[in-house]
Amino acid sequence: MNYNENSAIGVFDSGIGGLTAVKELIKLLPNENIIYLGDTARVPYGTRSPQTIQKYAAQNFRFLKSFNIKMIIAACGTVSSVLSTMPSYSDGDCLNGFFYTGVIRPAAQAAVSATKNKKIGVIGTDATVRSQSYKSLIQSILPGAEVYQKACPMFVPLVENGYTQRDCIPCVEIAKEYLTPLKEAGIDTLILGCTHYPIISDVIADIMGSGVKLISSGGEAGRYAKAVLAENELLSRRQEKGSITLYCTDSAELFCKNAEHFLDGITPMEIKTCTLDSE
Amino acid sequence: MNYNENSAIGVFDSGIGGLTAVKELIKLLPNENIIYLGDTARVPYGTRSPQTIQKYAAQNFRFLKSFNIKMIIAACGTVSSVLSTMPSYSDGDCLNGFFYTGVIRPAAQAAVSATKNKKIGVIGTDATVRSQSYKSLIQSILPGAEVYQKACPMFVPLVENGYTQRDCIPCVEIAKEYLTPLKEAGIDTLILGCTHYPIISDVIADIMGSGVKLISSGGEAGRYAKAVLAENELLSRRQEKGSITLYCTDSAELFCKNAEHFLDGITPMEIKTCTLDSE
Repeated sequence: MNYNENSAIGVFDSGIGGLTAVKELIKLLPNENIIYLGDTARVPYGTRSPQTIQKYAAQNFRFLKSFNIKMIIAACGTVSSVLSTMPSYSDGDCLNGFFYTGVIRPAAQAAVSATKNKKIGVIGTDATVRSQSYKSLIQSILPGAEVYQKACPMFVPLVENGYTQRDCIPCVEIAKEYLTPLKEAGIDTLILGCTHYPIISDVIADIMGSGVKLISSGGEAGRYAKAVLAENELLSRRQEKGSITLYCTDSAELFCKNAEHFLDGITPMEIKTCTLDSE
Repeated sequence: MNYNENSAIGVFDSGIGGLTAVKELIKLLPNENIIYLGDTARVPYGTRSPQTIQKYAAQNFRFLKSFNIKMIIAACGTVSSVLSTMPSYSDGDCLNGFFYTGVIRPAAQAAVSATKNKKIGVIGTDATVRSQSYKSLIQSILPGAEVYQKACPMFVPLVENGYTQRDCIPCVEIAKEYLTPLKEAGIDTLILGCTHYPIISDVIADIMGSGVKLISSGGEAGRYAKAVLAENELLSRRQEKGSITLYCTDSAELFCKNAEHFLDGITPMEIKTCTLDSE
């Protein structure tokens, strides 16, 4: 164990979506140093096979482990769900030299606490839904829960291209198509299983109605990470604000341009391009 | 020179879009062996930086060169446009051991032949439009031509997710937004600069009207490749049908599922997953 309470928190995502989790983390833990990695040269992960996602995730872990870090957060619904099917990556566990969490357990626990009728919806990428990770975890925590899943592959491109307004016809039409079956199933809680989705939470809320509680998986991961660090006496005692460093695998200039919607509220110390091993 | 007239034609694309070019190639040259590579583990290329696209393209070239090939076709608007800004990749040239063409010169020549009012539109990915490759080539072939470009980043996800019907509201709405400025500019010819776009040519034609000629860049590349091979006496003399082998960098199963719309008319001998060097 080389870390201490002033070591950084490493956060990674396939691209820029994970910045929604960073934003929550800064609110909850303003004094922590955060190192973020967005694999923008290979985004999106959500349409790829589990084997490819595992390979990419391993490279992301190795990159973040090259810094002095105490925790890694997979702020990516796709990676979290694929890793959660592997026994060695359990949310909240201490792995080889750092604490780890993805978004699955944090979001599943929040959904189970929120539901009254035991009918929970999950939206995410193709890979997240295929993995069945939310469904199996929710049903193990809350036996008898009914879990309705729907892959929403168009949400990431819509968000990344700025089709996010409440009255944006393509976004609303596609969202209605995805969400109507979940609404008809009578769910009272919906997990936004991809860290891009909070950007269109207005569109989603309008369709689902006020009776359905939306759970942000990235936001819950931030709260969960804080609890794990507190329990292990690893919260920073720094008095000043922590530093935020952003890495990406494609050009930093392109990252800044694409991340505009996501960077609001984040003031990075620097944004740099990096190379992952055997990328 | 190790190739002869019975060597294969290598074709690559970032994903499945290049199969529209393969389909044209099979119609034009039914007796040729074709080896196709789709880099499905890293699709799409169109949002990436020129440096990253060049790196990925070099890996695709090295993979195809490991076979006995006489020609490589970059059936990807993004790769073609980035390479066409480099002096060593000129469409129709003999490179280091094989003939090469991208889609830029073939499509630009076809557009210049088709236009009557010298107003040509180009639609493609962000990277294609940023490269200015179509604009500079068209204006060097046809001085005084006016070239109107528009990046259409949502077309690839719409096509890959099956939003392709003539009356599909999200597809039609987004297409109207992209194409209205080109229509208002009075173009009479429109280059579909990405090999995904022919799949939604009905939607595009409805918006542009019957006075606008659509040019399929992948289709033109096929015709151009045939002419280059004929000129160099490299057309196959095989009597029987050629074999089609498809490689992808992510799972072959996923490739088959996603390529459904694109494979119509193509009967591959096999579909295999491959690994690119230092991927």
